[in-house]
Amino acid sequence: MVYPWVWRLAWLLLPAAWLLDRFDFPDAVVFSVACASLVPLARTMGDATEGLAERIGPAAGSLLNATFGNAAELILGIAALRHGHIELVKGSITGSILANLLLVGGGAIVTGGIRFSQLRFNRLAASSSISTLFLAVVAMVVPTLLKLGRNPRYEPALLSEEISAVLIAMYGLSLWFGLRTHREHLAAVDDEPPAADPPPAQRRSIGVELGRLLAAAAATAGASELLVDALNGTVATLRLPEMFVGVVIVAIVGNAAEHSTALIFALRGDMDVALGIAWESSKQIALLVAPVLVFVGILLGVPMDLAFTRFEVVALGISVIAVALIALDGESNWLEGAFLLAVYAVLGLGFFFVG
Amino acid sequence: MVYPWVWRLAWLLLPAAWLLDRFDFPDAVVFSVACASLVPLARTMGDATEGLAERIGPAAGSLLNATFGNAAELILGIAALRHGHIELVKGSITGSILANLLLVGGGAIVTGGIRFSQLRFNRLAASSSISTLFLAVVAMVVPTLLKLGRNPRYEPALLSEEISAVLIAMYGLSLWFGLRTHREHLAAVDDEPPAADPPPAQRRSIGVELGRLLAAAAATAGASELLVDALNGTVATLRLPEMFVGVVIVAIVGNAAEHSTALIFALRGDMDVALGIAWESSKQIALLVAPVLVFVGILLGVPMDLAFTRFEVVALGISVIAVALIALDGESNWLEGAFLLAVYAVLGLGFFFVG
Amino acid sequence: MVYPWVWRLAWLLLPAAWLLDRFDFPDAVVFSVACASLVPLARTMGDATEGLAERIGPAAGSLLNATFGNAAELILGIAALRHGHIELVKGSITGSILANLLLVGGGAIVTGGIRFSQLRFNRLAASSSISTLFLAVVAMVVPTLLKLGRNPRYEPALLSEEISAVLIAMYGLSLWFGLRTHREHLAAVDDEPPAADPPPAQRRSIGVELGRLLAAAAATAGASELLVDALNGTVATLRLPEMFVGVVIVAIVGNAAEHSTALIFALRGDMDVALGIAWESSKQIALLVAPVLVFVGILLGVPMDLAFTRFEVVALGISVIAVALIALDGESNWLEGAFLLAVYAVLGLGFFFVG
Repeated sequence: MVYPWVWRLAWLLLPAAWLLDRFDFPDAVVFSVACASLVPLARTMGDATEGLAERIGPAAGSLLNATFGNAAELILGIAALRHGHIELVKGSITGSILANLLLVGGGAIVTGGIRFSQLRFNRLAASSSISTLFLAVVAMVVPTLLKLGRNPRYEPALLSEEISAVLIAMYGLSLWFGLRTHREHLAAVDDEPPAADPPPAQRRSIGVELGRLLAAAAATAGASELLVDALNGTVATLRLPEMFVGVVIVAIVGNAAEHSTALIFALRGDMDVALGIAWESSKQIALLVAPVLVFVGILLGVPMDLAFTRFEVVALGISVIAVALIALDGESNWLEGAFLLAVYAVLGLGFFFVG
Repeated sequence: MVYPWVWRLAWLLLPAAWLLDRFDFPDAVVFSVACASLVPLARTMGDATEGLAERIGPAAGSLLNATFGNAAELILGIAALRHGHIELVKGSITGSILANLLLVGGGAIVTGGIRFSQLRFNRLAASSSISTLFLAVVAMVVPTLLKLGRNPRYEPALLSEEISAVLIAMYGLSLWFGLRTHREHLAAVDDEPPAADPPPAQRRSIGVELGRLLAAAAATAGASELLVDALNGTVATLRLPEMFVGVVIVAIVGNAAEHSTALIFALRGDMDVALGIAWESSKQIALLVAPVLVFVGILLGVPMDLAFTRFEVVALGISVIAVALIALDGESNWLEGAFLLAVYAVLGLGFFFVG
Repeated sequence: MVYPWVWRLAWLLLPAAWLLDRFDFPDAVVFSVACASLVPLARTMGDATEGLAERIGPAAGSLLNATFGNAAELILGIAALRHGHIELVKGSITGSILANLLLVGGGAIVTGGIRFSQLRFNRLAASSSISTLFLAVVAMVVPTLLKLGRNPRYEPALLSEEISAVLIAMYGLSLWFGLRTHREHLAAVDDEPPAADPPPAQRRSIGVELGRLLAAAAATAGASELLVDALNGTVATLRLPEMFVGVVIVAIVGNAAEHSTALIFALRGDMDVALGIAWESSKQIALLVAPVLVFVGILLGVPMDLAFTRFEVVALGISVIAVALIALDGESNWLEGAFLLAVYAVLGLGFFFVG
């Protein structure tokens, strides 16, 4: 979809952002360039993880893939927590899940549906992803309701820690399900996308892949610092609420790599891989990144919990039910993709005004 | 089901209402007669639209049908907006959707289910109607939540206009889906109900049909004026809240024609047509009539938006999920129809007390 | 699963509780022993009901079974209402439904799913149970929303009575559906579990069974009195909120018998019976026990209505949707059972803090 040299050039965005920051350019400019620099970095981390995964065998590889697939979101989340931007962290969790489910998923269904009048995919994969994501919604509804109720017995930190433990356990179980007990039932989905652009001839050794992964992670950490540093100024200049920045802008940028890969597979009509990317990524953020950030918050002494705003929780619930309505039957068509995109548009408009 | 001369006599209800109003009869009497006069008028508009549709070929005809099918609701809505009865307009939108989904849908399933132990219908039609209606619920949840949150950034009119544009676009896409790309997949539903009573021999020329349509529309506008004029007095006399009048009384009257046609098809076991009427009508009101009324409100300078009361939004969400629970599998039985009717009864009781 | 003599010994728990109360042991001790004594009593009532059911023929038997299956909950509820513990009654209704749907249902699916990679069950039974339970959720949402809205028109008692009548009517219809019109379509579920432990040779005469039933009912009433008497002291000592006691402790104890029977059938892979127990029991509590307790409240002059707390209603809605997500397709696997258990755990944590 994009020429390799464009991706290589895109690495230059990070030093550019650093220079802009250094020479006191306006925060909004630094923020934009740092945001953009995350796209090739997230992609490189994804590629390197998959490259490593191919080297170390399918089972361990899938595990690695599943664990590090959203490393960019995690690194950015930690940087934001260190600077106390809890709203941004929560917003980018909500937004990543919404973007993956509705924007990536809907875009993939529309793309595939334009060529094929009916798209089929593994029903078991759909139903296990959807139920797992529904658990994540429940895990956010409970502390949010308790916070709204202003209950004297309620200890936000303790409740969120306990719920986070349940989520991580469930994530582990879903890995066990996909990699062990029901691997063959999910076959089409587990054929992880071979990185779309580099042809197999370019395969690198384990050492090189590991080096790329670490370099990209370090660069992501740097870009995240720049981005978070420039956040306050940007929010003030553009008069955008911090939550909107997290929910829409950061989330779309952070998931751009997933988005382009999913669309490529959807064009070929391979909906199992295309939707698998969207759903696995949502699951990982909801059941692994979010609870890990709760525990990181404890270590950093930042009161990060799973109590979101009412609008965020309703939006997540709506998006999981929307996906359930169209995907549980294992079939899809372009109108259902357009439906997901329309739901995303309406929720996005809401996030703009909710501030 | 009813003799033709009864329908012709029923046209006299409109002049009767006008005379009653003229000679200062109590508002509640005028209101009741004007309400009743809407039943034959809505039916005539539906018949004439279908008659025209048959003349001008299937594609343009379906489009006409789909666009003018709920003209009575639209005309009544405009009359109510002109008099500033925003509560009534919103209530009748909510109520029409509820009545179509639960009362017409449930009634049709019970009627068909008494004769046939299992009723089958097109799953694709069910799932695309349900997901489209779910979008409409989302479109009402977002402004309602924002209004409850009393957010300073929130601009109700702007948000509702933008969401209305999304809804109308989605309605256009669903027409394109049904009339173009997936016409054959929805075959059974697209065989629009040939007007049930008049035998084919009575077909009229295009001019006559157009005349009937315009005459009925004009008469509906007149009846709507009488009805809305008498509303304040009626509400005061009967001690009924304005929303209840809109949600239950006006909605049942306005959809009486759909109701009787759907039951006739259900009796024959033709659930595709029976449920198609209920779902298409709900979709049209939610995705076309409601957003058009938002834009009419702007023209009239009336602050009509998509922010409903909490109870209305919850009721709509419940009704769409209830239909999804029973219809997504493409099968039905009388208990599922009774379930929809029971949900309608419980919600109706709620609307009585919510005032 | 448990030796018969253990069950017989367990009957001694009731006199033990009585003695402990008599000799002024702390309330928490009396409460615990009275709670424990309910387990064998509920089991005996269930056994005797089924024994009677076998004697009097399948149709009347199923009816008896369906009507008296949750007699323990009803008796306990009446005792609690007589002492004015409305919170406890509502909590134990919520908790029984949650425990049956999520804990018993999820436990059965995990148990069966460990041995069989895919579990199948009657889809019609699943879908009719789920839609009926959804009606019960609607029946609780409506008064709860009205109570939160503090509406002047709202008459809690009247609304709850009317809704209760709808629920009982719907329960009657669902019996008619299962026992008459669609008996053969639900075949696997209607083969009610032959009491798991006592072999057929031990069948007793009608008189003996009736005696056992009445004796167990009387003993349950006694145990309920002790339990409710000791409630205030227990709540104060353990610093547990009354609702948590109802939702979690009383509900688990009251449904222990169902739980063990369902697990036995799940171990054999007979998911129709295992899940049937969980769902029928939930339906009975929601559509029969709860509305009957509303009418009992009127007789006793206690303001028992169907307005629950916001958290209870959300928890019930979540649990019904969770079951719908995994069960409507008529197939299951261990991950889906783990999902239900995880939802139960998260909701249970919430109830602990909501106090």
